[in-house]
Amino acid sequence: MKRILLLALAGVSLAGGAQTHDGGYPITPVPFTYVKVTDSFWGQRLKASREVTIPLAFSKCEETGRYENFAKAAHPSNDYKVEGFSFDDTDVYKTIEGASYSMQTYPDKKLDKYIDSVLMVVAAAQEPDGYLYTARTMNPQHPHEWAGSKRWEKVEDLSHEFYNLGHMVEGAVAHYQATGKRTFLDVAIKYADCVEKAIGDKPGQLVRVPGHQIAEMALCKLYLVTGQKKYLDLAKFFLDKRGYTERKDAYSQAHKPVLEQDEAVGHAVRAAYMYSGMADVAALTGDTGYVHAIDRIWENVVTKKLYITGGIGATNNGEAFGKNYELPNLSAYCETCAAIGNVYWNYRLFLLHGESKYYDVLERTLYNGLISGVSLEGNGFFYPNPLASTGQHQRKPWFGCACCPSNICRFIPSLPGYIYAVHDKNVYVNLFMSNSSDLKVGGKSLKLTQSTGYPWDGDVRLDMAPKGKQDFTLKIRVPGWVRGEVVPSDLYMFSDGKQLGYSVKVNGEPVESNLDKGYFSITRQWKKGDVVEVHFDMEPRMVKANVKVEADRGRVAVERGPVVYCAEWPDNSFGVMNVLMNRKPAFTVERKSDLLYGIDEIKVAAQALSYGRDGRLSVEDVTLTLIPYYAWAHRGKGEMAVWLPQEVNAVSPASDR
Amino acid sequence: MKRILLLALAGVSLAGGAQTHDGGYPITPVPFTYVKVTDSFWGQRLKASREVTIPLAFSKCEETGRYENFAKAAHPSNDYKVEGFSFDDTDVYKTIEGASYSMQTYPDKKLDKYIDSVLMVVAAAQEPDGYLYTARTMNPQHPHEWAGSKRWEKVEDLSHEFYNLGHMVEGAVAHYQATGKRTFLDVAIKYADCVEKAIGDKPGQLVRVPGHQIAEMALCKLYLVTGQKKYLDLAKFFLDKRGYTERKDAYSQAHKPVLEQDEAVGHAVRAAYMYSGMADVAALTGDTGYVHAIDRIWENVVTKKLYITGGIGATNNGEAFGKNYELPNLSAYCETCAAIGNVYWNYRLFLLHGESKYYDVLERTLYNGLISGVSLEGNGFFYPNPLASTGQHQRKPWFGCACCPSNICRFIPSLPGYIYAVHDKNVYVNLFMSNSSDLKVGGKSLKLTQSTGYPWDGDVRLDMAPKGKQDFTLKIRVPGWVRGEVVPSDLYMFSDGKQLGYSVKVNGEPVESNLDKGYFSITRQWKKGDVVEVHFDMEPRMVKANVKVEADRGRVAVERGPVVYCAEWPDNSFGVMNVLMNRKPAFTVERKSDLLYGIDEIKVAAQALSYGRDGRLSVEDVTLTLIPYYAWAHRGKGEMAVWLPQEVNAVSPASDR
Repeated sequence: MKRILLLALAGVSLAGGAQTHDGGYPITPVPFTYVKVTDSFWGQRLKASREVTIPLAFSKCEETGRYENFAKAAHPSNDYKVEGFSFDDTDVYKTIEGASYSMQTYPDKKLDKYIDSVLMVVAAAQEPDGYLYTARTMNPQHPHEWAGSKRWEKVEDLSHEFYNLGHMVEGAVAHYQATGKRTFLDVAIKYADCVEKAIGDKPGQLVRVPGHQIAEMALCKLYLVTGQKKYLDLAKFFLDKRGYTERKDAYSQAHKPVLEQDEAVGHAVRAAYMYSGMADVAALTGDTGYVHAIDRIWENVVTKKLYITGGIGATNNGEAFGKNYELPNLSAYCETCAAIGNVYWNYRLFLLHGESKYYDVLERTLYNGLISGVSLEGNGFFYPNPLASTGQHQRKPWFGCACCPSNICRFIPSLPGYIYAVHDKNVYVNLFMSNSSDLKVGGKSLKLTQSTGYPWDGDVRLDMAPKGKQDFTLKIRVPGWVRGEVVPSDLYMFSDGKQLGYSVKVNGEPVESNLDKGYFSITRQWKKGDVVEVHFDMEPRMVKANVKVEADRGRVAVERGPVVYCAEWPDNSFGVMNVLMNRKPAFTVERKSDLLYGIDEIKVAAQALSYGRDGRLSVEDVTLTLIPYYAWAHRGKGEMAVWLPQEVNAVSPASDR
Repeated sequence: MKRILLLALAGVSLAGGAQTHDGGYPITPVPFTYVKVTDSFWGQRLKASREVTIPLAFSKCEETGRYENFAKAAHPSNDYKVEGFSFDDTDVYKTIEGASYSMQTYPDKKLDKYIDSVLMVVAAAQEPDGYLYTARTMNPQHPHEWAGSKRWEKVEDLSHEFYNLGHMVEGAVAHYQATGKRTFLDVAIKYADCVEKAIGDKPGQLVRVPGHQIAEMALCKLYLVTGQKKYLDLAKFFLDKRGYTERKDAYSQAHKPVLEQDEAVGHAVRAAYMYSGMADVAALTGDTGYVHAIDRIWENVVTKKLYITGGIGATNNGEAFGKNYELPNLSAYCETCAAIGNVYWNYRLFLLHGESKYYDVLERTLYNGLISGVSLEGNGFFYPNPLASTGQHQRKPWFGCACCPSNICRFIPSLPGYIYAVHDKNVYVNLFMSNSSDLKVGGKSLKLTQSTGYPWDGDVRLDMAPKGKQDFTLKIRVPGWVRGEVVPSDLYMFSDGKQLGYSVKVNGEPVESNLDKGYFSITRQWKKGDVVEVHFDMEPRMVKANVKVEADRGRVAVERGPVVYCAEWPDNSFGVMNVLMNRKPAFTVERKSDLLYGIDEIKVAAQALSYGRDGRLSVEDVTLTLIPYYAWAHRGKGEMAVWLPQEVNAVSPASDR
């Protein structure tokens, strides 16, 4: 057991671990445990996660019988009817994972004890050889309808036995890191060993791949925690056999071997998890074939399959990627879990390549299509995150299939780990939020304090406090939206085509730098008291989509900073689907501290179209109010639109037909 | 030779022929030679055809070297470069066909002599064994690039050797009927015999089908004229072998055996000619398999592939039918030849089934998408007939590929043959135009005079003059547009969903009848002096397309009587693509005797949308003027639209971008 190994993966470090790059990636993240977020924007989200979402998720696990499933599995009976989903166990694992992250920053004895008691129930459900899958164990004669009559029979279909393993490992590693307790980790290792024994291409083993990916990422973490290469080998086996087993469909990315894939297809969550797993295995094995494959697929996504909100997965049909340029708004699927998966994947691509474009996608996803998935209060969830609504959408307190809420549980507390990264004598500043952090650069300690009102203003101050004098390069990400790039492709374009201004000062003196892979680099000898001031212009701007995106033709979206805006009914006295934007509108920004936990509203002159009874059109001059997309659906049901008509043919037809 | 045989096919009778049904169809047409059109609407068209189009076509045949090709073929040389198209000969044949029809009603000695001289040149080009194909004969060593190195080698591809045969036979039969002279007929028989000898499934013969259909119809006519069954057998062979030879593509309807086809696909002219040929062979052989096939295909066309103008063939790509509901307006192909083919086909389906719905399609095609193909003056032609224009379309005086003008030459003079038909003691009145006719009903003579201002008004007077007293049923077609049916399907619907009123009086007394297959039937003993007065309401009406037709979504078209209207730039001071129709507009009709040879204009209040420089929309109340679609493109280039926006999202985007 290498206890001091750093888990570069997912920003998670072992308790007390050093910032090394044993995750295999060229670039080393600064784990969230070294970063204390003091930000008002994200502080609110972290607090809601800690105080509302995670307790809610635990109570839902209890209320919906998820704990009971484990208790039943400890004492199997032919009388038990196995209901719910075959992956219900994972909500328990995922919530423990989120709670563990949270406890690392905000120790909570009561929560720690609660988790201990939950884990006793979990451990009791494990079969003697390590198999842990309540959907079969509680009633082996009549297991869950998706489970198959024997182990692994349906693991490539819907049993989710490997998916459950994956989330168990992710949760167990987090719990171990947070608490130092091996209770959950030992259970996970035992199940992993059970799988590793049964699956493989040696005699007597079965060649099977997960129906739903995640074990690939998780087994890499388990390898880093335990130092046992067999887990890495199993992760690689799961990737390399895909496309060669019975399962051969695009839905689960099994239509061809992973190394040959070049288009994002099928179930978007499965896909993003798999691409992330490929990055992890590539980093740990040095296998560049995986990297070439995910680079090609990424190119496909950012040029043809990415929503302006960073959402992925256009269609409800298979919760899947659509065709190229198929990006409908009202029916956009954009599952919250897929947004999280998109962050995982782009994060790993940054760690591999060191280019800011991956963070451009990550930041866009984070501030828009990901946090839209949970209400500001932390107690309401979207499964799909559409870009338009006629009132049919509303956040719900939980779902029968609860993957999204429990994913939010584990993602939000891990966020501080995405801000910084280190590579030799380079310090990457990737996200902008107030925090104080404790980094290691070239083996030396650097305290770095970030102060900003981002995403509402574009001024970021970095207070440097190295131990003594230190030579290193500070690499500040200049976001794509500053550099005139909505996304790293021509899928979306700012309608004015211009770059925004930005400036950097060191100790009050302007400094210059050519951008290197999107980074403003300052190489110098740093000393305590050095102050770096970054300014990004924050004008609201209109975006147009590539004309091949049929759903957005004749429409514009409005962004400011990293935030995508939308028009919602409570702020406007006319139908927001029937509004017509001017060609060159003048935007004004108004701070609304009391609205939706504090937002900057955007106002703009526009025209509202309506029909009389005789079908006659009338046009009214109006002031259109826009709010951040993430903040919609907090005030009841009604119309919302991200893409607003600028051409009359994009205005909705008469609604009274 | 059965000289007295009636050619029921294509409304053509042998000179002096009786009205029998030897064409094999249950219903016997009244050939155009028995009908003298005195109509102002169609009289103008017939005059333009006679005085302008046919002379123009002959002069173009001369000017473009088409006669010279025959002269060269009479004296072959390796020096000749074979240029133009491999079917250029047919323009000569088709113009002779049209001129022959015309001469039958309007004898013209000068024209007769001119044709004689042309035919001497044609006959001289025939090879000793009957082969007549100047594209090879003039230079057998280096024939036309589409001809192949030997006879029939490319006949399923682009050589058009059988296509040339077909038009030769059609022209020759017409010339023989009109003049009694066998010059052209003997040439055609000799070529037909040459083909009949070479093609077949006996030893030493080749199994080949035409790359471009028409010979199927033509050979049926030749069978009726000569009484020789071998021509009918060859027509049937051409149909039955299709899909079984090397050629197996949908472009020429060879993707499957004709009996198995159920969707209209591929080149629209080839298709319509083939379906017509199938009807002819079915009528003459009693083979119902063909009828079932063309019934299925017709159902496909009228429910999914028919333009409101009666045009067929949506796409320039292969001059072909599009997918179901693929009916674009600006890029609509709607070749003039395909409209003529659509008339041929629907006419034959009426003769088979006696239902008025086929005439509904025929009439719609005739008054709209067919006559739009030739200018009112008779000297300008459209090859495609689009339903919208931004100014890129204009009629031309001729084409390199001249199929459409020469088809207009032969179609227009044959029109009077489409008005009446007879079946036992039933007289069908299918089209409405002033004429005097001489029918045979149950072996007895009936003079029938029709007087009407159709299509501008809906009053039709029939003056009956039977020889003595006669019992028979007068069957007056009540058009689909009166009965609330735009087409015989839900592809288009009147937006008010209502039937128009109509009434029938006999000798001033109202009579009633349930419609039978779309016909108002009056059975009585008729005597000379009986007067039938028919009235159809002629209110302008709005039409909507099935929502599956994407190009027409949010739009309406306007019809009055059988005439489809359009908005064209010379009549409107605002962009007709940017107009918005009211939901329930009030139409007014204005007679314009001096405009476009006399039309009824429609005026309606609407709204014109325009954009300011800043992209601000302004809406203006306007009076929109509509003209008949067939009459557009006579006053220069500019905007035209049949389908007019009624929903704002159908209005064109800002044009200044």
